[in-house]
Amino acid sequence: MDHRRLAEALREIVGPDGVIAAADDCLVYECDMLVYYKGAPDVVVLPSSAAQVAAVVRLCVEAGVPIVPRGSGTGLIGGAMAPRGGVMIGVNRMDRVLEVDLQNRYAIVEPGVINLALTRAVEGRGYFFAPDPSSQMVSSIGGNAATNAGGPHALKYGSAVSHVLGVEVATGRGELLWLGGPVQERPGYDLTGAMVGSEGTLGVITKVAVKLTRAGEAVKTALATFDSIEVASEAVSAIIAEGIIPAALEALDEPIIRAIEAGVKAGYPADARAVLLIELDGPAAEVEVQAETVARICRARGALTLRVAKDDAERALLWKGRKEAAGAVGRITHNYVLQDAVVPRSKLPEIMAQVQAIAAARDLVVANVFHAGDGNLHPLICYDERVPGQFESALEASDAILDACIAVGGTVTGEHGVGMDKAKKLALLFSEDDLAAMAAVRRVFDPRGVMNPGKIFPSHAACFEAAPGRGARPVPEGMWV
Amino acid sequence: MDHRRLAEALREIVGPDGVIAAADDCLVYECDMLVYYKGAPDVVVLPSSAAQVAAVVRLCVEAGVPIVPRGSGTGLIGGAMAPRGGVMIGVNRMDRVLEVDLQNRYAIVEPGVINLALTRAVEGRGYFFAPDPSSQMVSSIGGNAATNAGGPHALKYGSAVSHVLGVEVATGRGELLWLGGPVQERPGYDLTGAMVGSEGTLGVITKVAVKLTRAGEAVKTALATFDSIEVASEAVSAIIAEGIIPAALEALDEPIIRAIEAGVKAGYPADARAVLLIELDGPAAEVEVQAETVARICRARGALTLRVAKDDAERALLWKGRKEAAGAVGRITHNYVLQDAVVPRSKLPEIMAQVQAIAAARDLVVANVFHAGDGNLHPLICYDERVPGQFESALEASDAILDACIAVGGTVTGEHGVGMDKAKKLALLFSEDDLAAMAAVRRVFDPRGVMNPGKIFPSHAACFEAAPGRGARPVPEGMWV
Repeated sequence: MDHRRLAEALREIVGPDGVIAAADDCLVYECDMLVYYKGAPDVVVLPSSAAQVAAVVRLCVEAGVPIVPRGSGTGLIGGAMAPRGGVMIGVNRMDRVLEVDLQNRYAIVEPGVINLALTRAVEGRGYFFAPDPSSQMVSSIGGNAATNAGGPHALKYGSAVSHVLGVEVATGRGELLWLGGPVQERPGYDLTGAMVGSEGTLGVITKVAVKLTRAGEAVKTALATFDSIEVASEAVSAIIAEGIIPAALEALDEPIIRAIEAGVKAGYPADARAVLLIELDGPAAEVEVQAETVARICRARGALTLRVAKDDAERALLWKGRKEAAGAVGRITHNYVLQDAVVPRSKLPEIMAQVQAIAAARDLVVANVFHAGDGNLHPLICYDERVPGQFESALEASDAILDACIAVGGTVTGEHGVGMDKAKKLALLFSEDDLAAMAAVRRVFDPRGVMNPGKIFPSHAACFEAAPGRGARPVPEGMWV
Repeated sequence: MDHRRLAEALREIVGPDGVIAAADDCLVYECDMLVYYKGAPDVVVLPSSAAQVAAVVRLCVEAGVPIVPRGSGTGLIGGAMAPRGGVMIGVNRMDRVLEVDLQNRYAIVEPGVINLALTRAVEGRGYFFAPDPSSQMVSSIGGNAATNAGGPHALKYGSAVSHVLGVEVATGRGELLWLGGPVQERPGYDLTGAMVGSEGTLGVITKVAVKLTRAGEAVKTALATFDSIEVASEAVSAIIAEGIIPAALEALDEPIIRAIEAGVKAGYPADARAVLLIELDGPAAEVEVQAETVARICRARGALTLRVAKDDAERALLWKGRKEAAGAVGRITHNYVLQDAVVPRSKLPEIMAQVQAIAAARDLVVANVFHAGDGNLHPLICYDERVPGQFESALEASDAILDACIAVGGTVTGEHGVGMDKAKKLALLFSEDDLAAMAAVRRVFDPRGVMNPGKIFPSHAACFEAAPGRGARPVPEGMWV
């Protein structure tokens, strides 16, 4: 099917104002927020209903055209971009909250609903949607589900997979399926978890049933400073070992503190080598007791200062510093690579030392902001693209950090996903049999190999080679058109 | 392969003392605790390692012989029994705790480890394994994972799927796979959830990585009495709406209270029409505050009495009544059918009235003990097999209760699973497309259709009919031998 006929067929499904076909306009969609993976779609389609999404998917499956779903495009993995061209399905117009049931604590939303918009819709009645990636003001719940996004509060509340009760998806089999649903316990195979985090390789999410969480009666946010990030990391383990799961337990190191204070001015002590941002929530009496325990542990573990936000404004400011940390780093470096990896919590001090050594060996500065309670690192490797070789050095360092995390029993993503960026690392984490089993599951939902090709798996072709006796052939490695 | 050669081949894998082949001896394994589904295996094999399980599975797959995994056989769904004969794999000899890592809060166990044994192994250091089915003194963690077992504390802590971080499985593809693992966040498809609760239809679990939960500082258990089970159910919704998630929130109605007091003598007021057993755990200060709130709500919602256990002995006795409730019913009825279903919590009062009407219309007594906080019912439908027609009436009532739960937006299992018993109900809960997608996933892991055939799916044959172009043919509906 040529470009003109494809665009026309899509216009028949979604109407003329729902198709973007001019090459220049499609260029806007060539990358997500990890800008060095680029690939523009041939057509962008903006459906307004699940039925339209299903029709678009069927059309593409029949024509063998790659399909790339996209929410707000705030991903950090080279996920919502089209390395082989094809049709990008933007879900932004599907932004209705379809049902809110507070008694049974769930909502059903369209995938384009903005993360924070759902919380705004229910917070007046004492509820919130717990996953809170830094992008929550703009990222979509469909995208959060597709990448299994987390956020600072994933420590206590879990990442997206813990909050997605079910999804409706348009799969490459041609149908609309509901996996899971508002009532959590269901017979049969629980495939919701497989769909969450599958990054569009199994289907396009058209509805999401999510858990709503009751807001705690009280919340307390504290900032503790330490002499080094390693000492701060030890305090993290000590807090968790005490049996306290804070709502959030974030660590930031010296370069990032300086960047934040240069930009956001969140009131972080500018001379601190490391800070922990600690949030406790729950019944007021419990928060009070936990706050005393946390303060005691921090002091015993070498905290230099500890300050509790005295009101909501100060609390909001402390969070503003954390949430805008990555942006603030832009003030102290020309460019950076932001990585996402996980180690067992007990390995944090060890891995922080390794991260510094890896950067130092390449004459690079690395700033660290991380979900310490989860063992979820976010090193920002600073470089200057105008200096020859620095970009390559930064990528090398990023790669070395991932390998170091794997070596201590960790993995290569805590909340961002795999996308283009980490696909090749999967071969280090999984056996050939493990990957073959995943590929076989993929073929169930994507028999033609058109669902977001090139993402997650080390080799797209290998996903489909091992499918004896099937008539379909996957889309070729090159562009489709 | 005939019976003698099969037994011999199995002896070569597991040694002579690991094979039970005499028909009389195999009869012991003809049912789980839902005794009216009967089917003895042709051979029982007792491997002592994952490698032995994988070898047994490969042998059976090649020979087209059905495979039925079994833990302690305490299931209540007609799951760990062999309707088509074949080889039963008993995992009881695989009962080692392989690794305990308290700092990172996980353990890796073999599937035959008894549920309570794991808690016993770590409770001295302040941890426990949270899923606590009533069978926990005898049921295996492998069986708990295979059926996604719950228990009273699933309300706060979640059922098995929330505590299984990963599983090693011998699948019908012939290999040993690790799905998930001790570090929770992992790239690729999250297939752990699909394996948990798949009841042996996708593979035999050979290792389980489980979360260990930190024991709360304090625990308080209270018993509240009410005028009717409907009023008690309303109090349940009111407690949850207040934002309190008790560790457990159990409801028991009049017939079962009488049965418990006739047998266990747990100190439940013998004249109560309904009781709630409410357990709170966590930091002492929090438990104190929550206990006051719960007491206030119960009184406002019509509680007649409320008593807090004054020490561990009284607390243990209150729980003994609950845990042995089903057994105690055996004292007031000759036989009973124990059902397991879920409704949205807000529908509890309505469904309790319907359950009573369904039983009354058939002149049957129904006793109710349920995980009220979860909306998870366990009606025990009493009958006397010596009275002609009563067994059939009880089954009819059981069936009508499931249909009523589906009609109010519920499902047919909260924690027991599907097995033989509820397979036909799946057609009411899922579309043909939904079931076809599940069947396609099954074919990935069970291409020959030998993994626990006849369980979960409404039709075993239909799972395999829709597999065009595959050379393998599934085992026939009849016996294999």
